[in-house]
Amino acid sequence: MFKQQGSFRLIGLITDFGSRGQHYVGAMKAVIKSIDKHISVIDINNNISPFSITEASFIIYYAVRDLPENSIILCVVDPGVGTERKILAVETENNILVIGPDNGIFSLLCVKYKIRRIFEITNKDLYYKSGKAISSTFHGKDIMAPVAAHIAAGCEIGLVGKSIRINDLIIDNKIGHAEVIDSNLIGAVILYQDEFGNLVTNIEEKDIEDCLSRYKNITLEGSNNSIRVVEKFSDLDKDEIGLLKGSSELMELTMKNKSAAHELGLDPSSKIQLKFH
Amino acid sequence: MFKQQGSFRLIGLITDFGSRGQHYVGAMKAVIKSIDKHISVIDINNNISPFSITEASFIIYYAVRDLPENSIILCVVDPGVGTERKILAVETENNILVIGPDNGIFSLLCVKYKIRRIFEITNKDLYYKSGKAISSTFHGKDIMAPVAAHIAAGCEIGLVGKSIRINDLIIDNKIGHAEVIDSNLIGAVILYQDEFGNLVTNIEEKDIEDCLSRYKNITLEGSNNSIRVVEKFSDLDKDEIGLLKGSSELMELTMKNKSAAHELGLDPSSKIQLKFH
Amino acid sequence: MFKQQGSFRLIGLITDFGSRGQHYVGAMKAVIKSIDKHISVIDINNNISPFSITEASFIIYYAVRDLPENSIILCVVDPGVGTERKILAVETENNILVIGPDNGIFSLLCVKYKIRRIFEITNKDLYYKSGKAISSTFHGKDIMAPVAAHIAAGCEIGLVGKSIRINDLIIDNKIGHAEVIDSNLIGAVILYQDEFGNLVTNIEEKDIEDCLSRYKNITLEGSNNSIRVVEKFSDLDKDEIGLLKGSSELMELTMKNKSAAHELGLDPSSKIQLKFH
Repeated sequence: MFKQQGSFRLIGLITDFGSRGQHYVGAMKAVIKSIDKHISVIDINNNISPFSITEASFIIYYAVRDLPENSIILCVVDPGVGTERKILAVETENNILVIGPDNGIFSLLCVKYKIRRIFEITNKDLYYKSGKAISSTFHGKDIMAPVAAHIAAGCEIGLVGKSIRINDLIIDNKIGHAEVIDSNLIGAVILYQDEFGNLVTNIEEKDIEDCLSRYKNITLEGSNNSIRVVEKFSDLDKDEIGLLKGSSELMELTMKNKSAAHELGLDPSSKIQLKFH
Repeated sequence: MFKQQGSFRLIGLITDFGSRGQHYVGAMKAVIKSIDKHISVIDINNNISPFSITEASFIIYYAVRDLPENSIILCVVDPGVGTERKILAVETENNILVIGPDNGIFSLLCVKYKIRRIFEITNKDLYYKSGKAISSTFHGKDIMAPVAAHIAAGCEIGLVGKSIRINDLIIDNKIGHAEVIDSNLIGAVILYQDEFGNLVTNIEEKDIEDCLSRYKNITLEGSNNSIRVVEKFSDLDKDEIGLLKGSSELMELTMKNKSAAHELGLDPSSKIQLKFH
Repeated sequence: MFKQQGSFRLIGLITDFGSRGQHYVGAMKAVIKSIDKHISVIDINNNISPFSITEASFIIYYAVRDLPENSIILCVVDPGVGTERKILAVETENNILVIGPDNGIFSLLCVKYKIRRIFEITNKDLYYKSGKAISSTFHGKDIMAPVAAHIAAGCEIGLVGKSIRINDLIIDNKIGHAEVIDSNLIGAVILYQDEFGNLVTNIEEKDIEDCLSRYKNITLEGSNNSIRVVEKFSDLDKDEIGLLKGSSELMELTMKNKSAAHELGLDPSSKIQLKFH
């Protein structure tokens, strides 16, 4: 169980506020520190592309892997702010609590991790300066940050609102899994593009093991690009495109000291098909 | 009164150092931590456009709203570094202390908040490694950061230098207030553009209440763009331009999941006129 | 000697992960906090150009100057990750420990600071979740961050691996020093370009003192740009190019409130020659 009081209290932030919206992140930190100055807050990634549910899903999944137990992830990628969309607190079995809007951002988390409990956040007593008006444009600061801070400060998770079932969450199945289209054709989605131009896919190593045992060539459908499965960047030749298990444990399209994204003309949310032959 | 010793000690940073100048921010944090390792430092916004007094004014104003009492804001947007411009410590009645150069960055703060005291920072004993030469290119690190750290660590504010009057500050009146040009014409300035392309103006809700009660249409002068006052992003139709009270409590030009800045061709410091008819 | 236990424990991060790779930085922070939640972590500069050894060398040098004694710098600019390149812990005589790959990033540090000891990091007991597989794509998280955290938490430096000699390091001599090509010609390298467009060179003030005493004009070879040595930005006229001792104590090409990089068409790693006449 997620332990609050006395246990480690770290909040990691994921937003699409970007460099120009760094003060929105700063305001969330200020609100958290106002509630409990001893809470430690770290930036996970505040440069999600505006409104990108796909990227947010990936970064939540990525962050859960390395955070210490009893950490909270606060993900404010919230194009529906001000509408009736729910705000959720999702607790994994490895004791990470993820707080964010119910718009699909939990799609990868719910596939890759066992979920223990989910609550819909509705308890106004835990909102920003309870009593004051809550904005209809920035629930990250007015609702999610203070709720996260109160939990980090010892408030029981169950107090945030009523428990809901995982089936009630908005899940985008295209994000969670690569798809076996044919015995030699895998359909996948680009989840993220990093600064080096590496393209993280939703393909797991096991998804292609069978194909790899039967075929020796891989091509990206719709292009002539031949792809080689490698273990590390340095295995690649200049201008060669590789498929490699990245630090996310998902397969990445990559090049050696060069941008695969630029070379292939792909970006997050792009659909791809890998043909084995 | 701003309480130092024993009270909460948080310093929030605002600079125009940008992503390529992150090490300048890092150096200020290093200096602060050298003076007192227990001071908590958060980034407010280090991506102010180079030398933009207007943007800095807005971000200072924005940050004051959410920081806990007895926090310090350190704003290093300082195109005049090395000249005779003053460095100030401005204390608000809600117990936030803002330290920065006297170049107009306090323009919005002094209009929106009651100011209790202002000091000109001149006490060299509080500068970086007192005794060593102070650079003429980076007073953020050599003067402002150490002074902020000493105050956070318990030094009385009054020791930084002599008290000065608010009338001695450089204030840009165009920043502080929107202007009633005519009974149906409001002149305003774009204070900031965020990553989503929202354009924060210096118009307050009350500035347009009267016009809104008398007219039903709003147009941006010099364009054919019709503007609708809304409460939240989702009230807008696709491609419609809205005017909405943002989380800053100032009115923002906005679009639904789209960049108003790009659509309107406006950016910070642009002057606009809203015509009601 | 670098003191671990009980002394100040601050880790400063330098990476080329950029805004899109902020979650890699976040993961390193998560790993550090997992080992010891009391370690303080600050960003020095995570926006090094991808794979730029030259920029990394400069930022390491820059950071060492202001960090408190007994701080650790963790520099993950590591194009050779997964190859046989060494990972080092380099201790300066002013008690800063720098951890990073042996690929030339220590080139400026070893010239400008006295080095006390150097160790090659090989002790797998200090790696990430000892026992688990170490990735071949992200040693910053799996090796360097946990080793840094263990040292900050009190582990003796000597336990990381065997001591090596400074002569065994990869050093790029072009980075460390400007070169006297002729009695009136200085060859130099652009080490860094900041957000304002200032270009930091590897020229020290003393490198040009002699020339300055003998000649009164300076020109950038291959262009007609005349250059004036000044003390502060405000000494420059509009459109004039200055050479000024920056906060790094190295000479910078600069303009007044304008980008010298843009004006001169130079960027990091560019070679330049200053002709005195």
